[in-house]
Amino acid sequence: MPRILRIAAAQMGPTQRADSRAQTLDRMIALLEQAAAQGAQLVVFPELAFTTFFPRWLLTEAELEEYFETALPGPQTQPLFDRAKALGVGFYVGYAEKTADGKRFNSAVTVGPDGTILQKYRKVHLPGSVEPRQGSRFQQLEKRYFEYGDMGFPAFYGPESWGAPVMGQLICNDRRWPEAWRVYALQGMELMVVGYNSAAYDPNGGDTEDQGLRTFHSQLAAQANAYMNAAWAVAVAKAGDEDGSGLIGGSCIVDPNGRIVAETRTLADEVVVADCDLDLCAQGKEKMFNFAQHRRPEMYGLITSRTGAEKPARG
Amino acid sequence: MPRILRIAAAQMGPTQRADSRAQTLDRMIALLEQAAAQGAQLVVFPELAFTTFFPRWLLTEAELEEYFETALPGPQTQPLFDRAKALGVGFYVGYAEKTADGKRFNSAVTVGPDGTILQKYRKVHLPGSVEPRQGSRFQQLEKRYFEYGDMGFPAFYGPESWGAPVMGQLICNDRRWPEAWRVYALQGMELMVVGYNSAAYDPNGGDTEDQGLRTFHSQLAAQANAYMNAAWAVAVAKAGDEDGSGLIGGSCIVDPNGRIVAETRTLADEVVVADCDLDLCAQGKEKMFNFAQHRRPEMYGLITSRTGAEKPARG
Repeated sequence: MPRILRIAAAQMGPTQRADSRAQTLDRMIALLEQAAAQGAQLVVFPELAFTTFFPRWLLTEAELEEYFETALPGPQTQPLFDRAKALGVGFYVGYAEKTADGKRFNSAVTVGPDGTILQKYRKVHLPGSVEPRQGSRFQQLEKRYFEYGDMGFPAFYGPESWGAPVMGQLICNDRRWPEAWRVYALQGMELMVVGYNSAAYDPNGGDTEDQGLRTFHSQLAAQANAYMNAAWAVAVAKAGDEDGSGLIGGSCIVDPNGRIVAETRTLADEVVVADCDLDLCAQGKEKMFNFAQHRRPEMYGLITSRTGAEKPARG
Repeated sequence: MPRILRIAAAQMGPTQRADSRAQTLDRMIALLEQAAAQGAQLVVFPELAFTTFFPRWLLTEAELEEYFETALPGPQTQPLFDRAKALGVGFYVGYAEKTADGKRFNSAVTVGPDGTILQKYRKVHLPGSVEPRQGSRFQQLEKRYFEYGDMGFPAFYGPESWGAPVMGQLICNDRRWPEAWRVYALQGMELMVVGYNSAAYDPNGGDTEDQGLRTFHSQLAAQANAYMNAAWAVAVAKAGDEDGSGLIGGSCIVDPNGRIVAETRTLADEVVVADCDLDLCAQGKEKMFNFAQHRRPEMYGLITSRTGAEKPARG
């Protein structure tokens, strides 16, 4: 019996600091309904989807609080969960998590069509810095506002109605790190879902990467890691201009050959859908990337024994 | 002072079983001279460049012997080394190595402009099988004919005249394994050289990957691993029809952004050249892929502790 899962990438356009939570949630529900109307069974939203990308601002503790969820669903997010359950649609969504003991994480969950949370994930690869850059209008303070994810890379099963795929979740910068994909693939991962907010350019000036190159990087990472792990990948942006700082789009659904089968064309709210045949993973997993036959872990020691790069001694 | 190294990808067209060693070496010397005439300082040849891709045949011990080098340079390869030294050009070349104690490896060396071997590498990721596939005209018997590489992934310095880049070497299938690239990048690798012989289609029929898709896979792996490791990559094919079995081309020189800056257009002997600014690696190594700041090895344990994929328990 074929295992074909219809997935929607629900790209979001920009969310400004001044936008209300209700306004943003309404946009998400509208995207969910568009996806459901096209028959999607799983809808993938971006990282930190409920708000603007607040780590670009140096915030007071009181300001910071507004961006975090102490429960999911909570009062401000419940309508999305309710509408999804009513439609029988599952979703991935990124959010800022504050735990009961006061820890903060950049997190995501995948929710099943019955409204239950299938698996939470906490971002491991936090970019940016702890201390603000002096004299910069825009910051990247993820290392200040969040703790490093403490759950590892926990693969999980989607429900039977999705074909019970082994799934993985990543968040934004994680997708550029092949280690993260590989740890999931070593658990048999067939479908990776990942949301992101990625700068379209250096908002303070100073480097050489324009929006086209950054979008290329984002898609290249999704495509190659899907191929090298024989998995489907769905990577979804929050895009466009947020309060003067640009974010790339380029949301895409990638097959296990690394080919983009659907991608967004705008920097706004936009849904694209694809039928993902989960059994297309089998050829790669059984032949080229048959890990049991071909991997040589005894040669990979530096990957876990060394963090930073160290050049060899000069001869 | 800028560190700009002019590199040639010296793609080779097919080499038939009946071709003489001298005939093939003459082609290699012609490619070397073409590259040198264009100012190349380093010329990258394919995997197993001196012969046909013999692991496609089930051979007797006596037949097998003819394909192996017991010394490098040796009587049949010395003219290439001599000509390169006379031209002041270095090169990477893949060959079948037989050691004094009778071990066989799928190996490569990088040779400096003064003719000295800078570093040897022995292929770690051997594809194929030990036992021949019954009833198949063509085999893939690398696991039968070669032992797994036993040198790890030894990074080394190119000479001062090349800008002293930290270099890595891979062979063919290795390039699809992100672990191999990462172990080199953890040694500061700025330039990866890799030769390959990759099937253009299943010569026995039976799978779904055509020549276009396989060429795409090959370039995708080189591009993404170059980007994710902030390094230049030069990937060079033996291409075309060898005794009825097809090999992809698609040789390319890739910058640290993952962009192809030069690529071959044929399946024949063909040289393409690019000026590779080694300092273009710095931005990636210092920012996005600053390993010391951003890697989280404590989360990567499965990469070294597990060989094959194991699915999670069903809930």
